[in-house]
Amino acid sequence: MTGPRQPLTTIDLSTVRELAQQLRVDSIRSSTSAGSGHPTSSMSAADILAVLVARHLRYDWDEPGARGNDHLIFSKGHASPLLYSIFKAVGVVSDEELVGEYRRFGSRLQGHPTPVLPWVDVATGSLGQGLPDGVGVALAGKYLDRLPYRVWVLCGDSEMAEGSIWEALDKAAYYELRNLTAIVDVNRLGQRGPTELEWDIDTYVRRAEAFGARVLTVDGHDVDAIDSVLTQAADGAARRPTVIFARTIKGRGFSEVEDREGWHGRTFPKDMAERAIAELGGERNLLVRGPVPDIDADTATAVDGPGTSATLPSYSVGDRVATRQAYGDALAALGGQYPNLVALDGEVSNSTHADQFAKAYPDRYFEMFIAEQQLVAAAVGLSVRHYIPFASTFAAFFTRAYDFIRMAAISRADLRLVGSHCGVEIGADGPSQMALEDLAMMRAVQGSTVLYPSDATSAAALVDAMVGTPGISFMRTTRGAYPVLYETGARFPVGGSKVLRSDPSDAVTLVGAGVTVHECLAAADRLAERGVRARVIDLYSVKPVDTATLIAAADATGGRFVVAEDHHPEGGVGSAVTDALLAHGPRSLTIVHLSVHEMPGSGTPEELLNAAGIDAEHIEAAVHNLLAESR
Amino acid sequence: MTGPRQPLTTIDLSTVRELAQQLRVDSIRSSTSAGSGHPTSSMSAADILAVLVARHLRYDWDEPGARGNDHLIFSKGHASPLLYSIFKAVGVVSDEELVGEYRRFGSRLQGHPTPVLPWVDVATGSLGQGLPDGVGVALAGKYLDRLPYRVWVLCGDSEMAEGSIWEALDKAAYYELRNLTAIVDVNRLGQRGPTELEWDIDTYVRRAEAFGARVLTVDGHDVDAIDSVLTQAADGAARRPTVIFARTIKGRGFSEVEDREGWHGRTFPKDMAERAIAELGGERNLLVRGPVPDIDADTATAVDGPGTSATLPSYSVGDRVATRQAYGDALAALGGQYPNLVALDGEVSNSTHADQFAKAYPDRYFEMFIAEQQLVAAAVGLSVRHYIPFASTFAAFFTRAYDFIRMAAISRADLRLVGSHCGVEIGADGPSQMALEDLAMMRAVQGSTVLYPSDATSAAALVDAMVGTPGISFMRTTRGAYPVLYETGARFPVGGSKVLRSDPSDAVTLVGAGVTVHECLAAADRLAERGVRARVIDLYSVKPVDTATLIAAADATGGRFVVAEDHHPEGGVGSAVTDALLAHGPRSLTIVHLSVHEMPGSGTPEELLNAAGIDAEHIEAAVHNLLAESR
Repeated sequence: MTGPRQPLTTIDLSTVRELAQQLRVDSIRSSTSAGSGHPTSSMSAADILAVLVARHLRYDWDEPGARGNDHLIFSKGHASPLLYSIFKAVGVVSDEELVGEYRRFGSRLQGHPTPVLPWVDVATGSLGQGLPDGVGVALAGKYLDRLPYRVWVLCGDSEMAEGSIWEALDKAAYYELRNLTAIVDVNRLGQRGPTELEWDIDTYVRRAEAFGARVLTVDGHDVDAIDSVLTQAADGAARRPTVIFARTIKGRGFSEVEDREGWHGRTFPKDMAERAIAELGGERNLLVRGPVPDIDADTATAVDGPGTSATLPSYSVGDRVATRQAYGDALAALGGQYPNLVALDGEVSNSTHADQFAKAYPDRYFEMFIAEQQLVAAAVGLSVRHYIPFASTFAAFFTRAYDFIRMAAISRADLRLVGSHCGVEIGADGPSQMALEDLAMMRAVQGSTVLYPSDATSAAALVDAMVGTPGISFMRTTRGAYPVLYETGARFPVGGSKVLRSDPSDAVTLVGAGVTVHECLAAADRLAERGVRARVIDLYSVKPVDTATLIAAADATGGRFVVAEDHHPEGGVGSAVTDALLAHGPRSLTIVHLSVHEMPGSGTPEELLNAAGIDAEHIEAAVHNLLAESR
Repeated sequence: MTGPRQPLTTIDLSTVRELAQQLRVDSIRSSTSAGSGHPTSSMSAADILAVLVARHLRYDWDEPGARGNDHLIFSKGHASPLLYSIFKAVGVVSDEELVGEYRRFGSRLQGHPTPVLPWVDVATGSLGQGLPDGVGVALAGKYLDRLPYRVWVLCGDSEMAEGSIWEALDKAAYYELRNLTAIVDVNRLGQRGPTELEWDIDTYVRRAEAFGARVLTVDGHDVDAIDSVLTQAADGAARRPTVIFARTIKGRGFSEVEDREGWHGRTFPKDMAERAIAELGGERNLLVRGPVPDIDADTATAVDGPGTSATLPSYSVGDRVATRQAYGDALAALGGQYPNLVALDGEVSNSTHADQFAKAYPDRYFEMFIAEQQLVAAAVGLSVRHYIPFASTFAAFFTRAYDFIRMAAISRADLRLVGSHCGVEIGADGPSQMALEDLAMMRAVQGSTVLYPSDATSAAALVDAMVGTPGISFMRTTRGAYPVLYETGARFPVGGSKVLRSDPSDAVTLVGAGVTVHECLAAADRLAERGVRARVIDLYSVKPVDTATLIAAADATGGRFVVAEDHHPEGGVGSAVTDALLAHGPRSLTIVHLSVHEMPGSGTPEELLNAAGIDAEHIEAAVHNLLAESR
């Protein structure tokens, strides 16, 4: 290992075999050095990846952002030693970094891959997500970019038990994603023992074929055979994705651990690592560069050029318009301004009003049917290709995709989620359709933005704001139609709020969001009739929250608050208010928090808001009690 | 319709045809009366259900709790008009209740079925859950009850797009659940248009067969043919579940809507309903009772008899033992005391330590592999049969099943979930494996209990407490081993806390849970060396929370708190503390909340706790700052 290495660019199969051994050795060296990691899960896939990277993956390693690059996603993210060993083999990570930094504090070579690394599209490590994400990337390639890049996803066999894998294959077939290849490393062993199907390749094949894929099988350690199936995969099947089931041996290449239980996620002690490296033929230092894209990608964009500036829909104050209607109106309007804005929905677009965008821009709308995990994953994949995805379903059903949302935050994806039919306000359909945990769920996502407009004007403005909001943003919309509160053109910055009633003599502050803003206003009116002035705040931005306005209100109204929200007591608007007030020094507060404590049933919105104790009547009563106690 | 009706018990197929029309008419009458509901989705399945209920379902309607009863689950819960019309036809719900109460406020006939009704096992309405729940019931029937009851699940075709359906079929085949039959109502139309596969029955068949089911197909409106396939289904296949794909017509029986788009979830106006009822032959009032179980179920229990009282594991104060280890120890110990305690895990039992129970009681352990939705659903199904399920995986991966947990609360299921590897404390594996949203997620579940022990003694005691805890309970365990803090025999009631340091001169209260309790103790020791007394509270019960102890601490320490938690800032321990303190009247508080704000990476636990600012060093610094500001 002396002097600068010259990369090999035309790589024969005997060199590939050497490369595979290098990847194994480096997977062992890095994980043993870290004292943590998954060497055996890396070794099973080393031959496949060596062939892929050396001869089929079209990737300009010096320009990871090149638009024509293929995509390589490790759905089995725990094989990170293998991925990072590839990064060393292509010369973008040094041997020192690989061995010295893997899994260390502050390192970009984390335990599972994340886009902290420029060659990584999405964070993986929660199984069953890389392939659904890859479907989103492939959708972009086929329908939006219209570029010939391919999407290669390495899956583990254990993750085939995740339903999300089948959601992904189903959608890959439905959308005829011939640019997508899933390679399943069937090494027979999971974490605590054999997988469900072990080496029953036939069953895997039947399942993937039934889900619409062109299926290939291969001995995952036969480099010639791998080269052959990857050639077929690279060419693509007619109107179908490709799935390759590779029969492999966990720990392949080191006889002491090959196909043995008890070696998942376990590193080799130093002496054992030395024996393994010796058996693998010692350290190597090949520098390889496989093919690069042969397209002039910069000219091949399908969505080039700025759009025309959108005119957001306008509504007349007092008219009754549902915020979900305003979502559809605004999204359709913004579609003209942003040629890279795309929308997806989970088969409820006529309820969420995403159908308005679908009608206006059918080429930029993706129906995901009732598969919420894939809905969010496709949006993640589209964001990898720099589209602006809006994904919608009932807010309650985003709970189905919480793991995907959590991982999207680790992926640093810019996602826009819009959930309709929140809270007991939906009425007769009952609790299964009511989002009552969504604000807590979404506030707890790292770096998230959580919005909950009360009227159509603010809803439309916030959809516009979401376009430019980084990270995971979520808007909650309401089923019913309520009066428009704000004039066209009013501003609703993320992190702001609106003070709807204010007077120097305010005795109490009422805080609402969404439907309860209307209840707070009605309560304030009734209170005013009885001589009690109440400040009313529309807390449309639940996270980040308008701390300054809340503190000013606390100072103005003796620290007395009534907060009403259509959500369970924990983690929603009430928490946002108290967190904000308490984060800024000592303060004497009296906060009455009205929320949905009991399990609701069916009824009219009015009956259910009343039964939950979050309507104007209960807000008014809470104020009277609070003021009586304060005296 | 005069006089009491005499039930028909031997029902020929011509009567079944009349019954089917009655179910259609009643589905229309109830939904039109309510002005809300899904008549067309009910009409497509009416013939199938008429045959099933009249001739195959073995069910004693007067004794819904009878142990030998078959189970009938509407996975397509929106067909509630059909289900409730069946309840009328068998005489357990009156016509007045059906038509006058459906979807009304306070009614047990909610928009989607819930176990408020004694004949309903689980709440449905979020699609793709009834079949996974049914897998749990069938597991109980085959492996635990060892009773010949059958589990019948009516699925919609739209929900076949949910990955959870395939997780369910996969596990049904793996566990050879011949007592399970899924009937898929393939009516071709979803909510906003055609389903993905429409009437492509062949593809459905290939998929279900590939997943290991015996598959039957039928014209879902041919009563003779339905009777034939249900006879086959009732007999069971050899070691396989049965899936019946029934080709049906949405809105069948009313020519104005048959197979038409735009009629999902839409009721017929009064005049249209009258035309429909006329076309269906008018109202009927058949009272039918199909077969009842022919077994003496009371003697056939596999888990009868009390077990021996368990001796919980004991640990020596100061020894280092991981709370996940204590979970395994305690669960194995409790297995002897509770013969109906069962455990499930998502292929990480050697990490969660559920494997200790699996080794001790292999007959009561169910491996769910990496399928967290099915993991939780199986636990729900087992709870239907009155088992005491404990389901475990990494706490982060329970986010995958949040919709199932939310629905389990609506089902009033008693579930015990135990999530290991919480927080940045896990170290090198990185953020994909770190639960940092789980407390927020679980606190927001209606009626939930959330526990987070700091040592092995309390962890074991809380596992014991969870056995008797109704509703959804969740315990968060830690990866690393920390010193045992409590003597054997110490009590840890749900809703309690432990004050670990307390002195009349306490200047501040430190609140921790789990790993941060140890950090709080270390900080308190350092502070004591500098003459600052700090009260330390181990808030092991995050919900319900020990309000009295917190308020006493507030009064004793001038309202000064430092709360440290290994979780994102929103919705966790900090929120539990502030919610408790603010719910009890005006109070001047200064709360410094230390939590995980930034996206973590890899590192050692110590490095990551320090980087997040939640270790002893940061707690100590926060106290100094807080006291400096208070002066």
